[in-house]
Amino acid sequence: MRKIETIEELKEWVQEQKSAGLSIGLVPTMGFLHEGHLTLVETAKQENDAVLMSIFVNPAQFGPNEDFERYPRNMERDMQLAETAGTDVIFAPSADEMYPRESAITISAGRLADQLCGKSRPGHFDGVLKVVTKLFHLAQADRAYFGQKDAQQLAIIESWVADFNFPLEIRRVATVREPDGLAKSSRNVYLSEQERGEAPHLKKALEIGKQAVLDGKNPVPLMEQHLTDNTSGKIDYIQLLSYPDLTENVVSDAILALAVQFEKARLIDNLIFTIKGN
Amino acid sequence: MRKIETIEELKEWVQEQKSAGLSIGLVPTMGFLHEGHLTLVETAKQENDAVLMSIFVNPAQFGPNEDFERYPRNMERDMQLAETAGTDVIFAPSADEMYPRESAITISAGRLADQLCGKSRPGHFDGVLKVVTKLFHLAQADRAYFGQKDAQQLAIIESWVADFNFPLEIRRVATVREPDGLAKSSRNVYLSEQERGEAPHLKKALEIGKQAVLDGKNPVPLMEQHLTDNTSGKIDYIQLLSYPDLTENVVSDAILALAVQFEKARLIDNLIFTIKGN
Repeated sequence: MRKIETIEELKEWVQEQKSAGLSIGLVPTMGFLHEGHLTLVETAKQENDAVLMSIFVNPAQFGPNEDFERYPRNMERDMQLAETAGTDVIFAPSADEMYPRESAITISAGRLADQLCGKSRPGHFDGVLKVVTKLFHLAQADRAYFGQKDAQQLAIIESWVADFNFPLEIRRVATVREPDGLAKSSRNVYLSEQERGEAPHLKKALEIGKQAVLDGKNPVPLMEQHLTDNTSGKIDYIQLLSYPDLTENVVSDAILALAVQFEKARLIDNLIFTIKGN
Repeated sequence: MRKIETIEELKEWVQEQKSAGLSIGLVPTMGFLHEGHLTLVETAKQENDAVLMSIFVNPAQFGPNEDFERYPRNMERDMQLAETAGTDVIFAPSADEMYPRESAITISAGRLADQLCGKSRPGHFDGVLKVVTKLFHLAQADRAYFGQKDAQQLAIIESWVADFNFPLEIRRVATVREPDGLAKSSRNVYLSEQERGEAPHLKKALEIGKQAVLDGKNPVPLMEQHLTDNTSGKIDYIQLLSYPDLTENVVSDAILALAVQFEKARLIDNLIFTIKGN
């Protein structure tokens, strides 16, 4: 596995793949890899000739009071895990390499960022769009892989790619979970022992809520009750929206999503499902 | 020469070129072609295997009180001129084909649109960025060709491409002029006979202004005087800015630009030059 730190070197590698007619699968990450990321790599490996993983803790998607500085990092371990999973190239640029100057031009996720995580993280998804745009252009990938766990991110990137005709396919990969149901996340390391014990109740609350929706009931009070009874976390949001357009007009494909703030970790999870017969 | 009207067919053509290892030069236009456009095609032809010209009067870059409806169109004549100049494919989509739905996601040119033409055309350059982003992604061109006449457009597109790592090169092509100095423009047809006689004074005013700048003087009063004395148009702006970053801190590369509103046509022109020895 090769590690590339400069845009110039990445461009050369991409050019080599293109000239040889090889397809590229891109797995954008912020590192501190867990099984979820590795599943993205494995899926990319099946569908492409070469797998490029980016590891870049993107300052543009962190708010001033968020955890950019203390976001967990471990490049050595990441390199080993990525290689084992089948990554061909790691692209790990510095922030200066990615953002040599502040662009006057900006991308705004608009109303897509007005709910779910976007509500409490102003600018977050604009920062995500900024970095994925650069990565998509640099990688010239045939496919890019994202986990369903970050469903709002996925929906926004899918819209961006579709509406602006990016020449690549976005592949949604199912959330990878611990045996007890907790969605894998780099931020799970922030949980205290007690919180780690409570955290599987996020998934349980989603299942209770999904059943309520399918029964034609409002899922929110039942889910609030379950989370309040079973965790010490503070509910940030519980929302049922259409997917992937994220409106409140839910008629068929839906996302039921929640975020819970624990002492040092804010965890998110969601289920995407179809409501039959309205 | 082939005419393509759907995105699906364009994608197929692009894929054929890519598979054959052929380079693509993109010439984005709004049609009603003049010699300026044809010079872009000729330049593209020299530097690429295939030349793709888009003809699309982009509604997103016209304001509500601008000339979208009456913007001059003549597809038959355009096709003949484009073919003679060496165009391989015309891409002429409908507005519905380009914008099947309004995207929630937007691109903003920010402070780059706060001066020159952007001042009197709010949203114009955001609309330009919207359409060129789609065209760049669809065409997967190696190079895209723009005339220097629309210098602010060029500067903004150059920033967008550089800051967001689009895998294509922007080529700036010198403004093509009538024998009397008037910059070629599709909007010149709107000029009355008298106005057409006055219009070469835009270039003359720029030359007077450039000499003033090189002499260390303020170019604006001299240019205002010249335009007032020699044309019936209303001056929209005269500005000296750094190029291509469009700030008022002019130390080396500069753009001197003006816009004059005639009865039915708003004309723009500019000179880009280097101020030596500050």
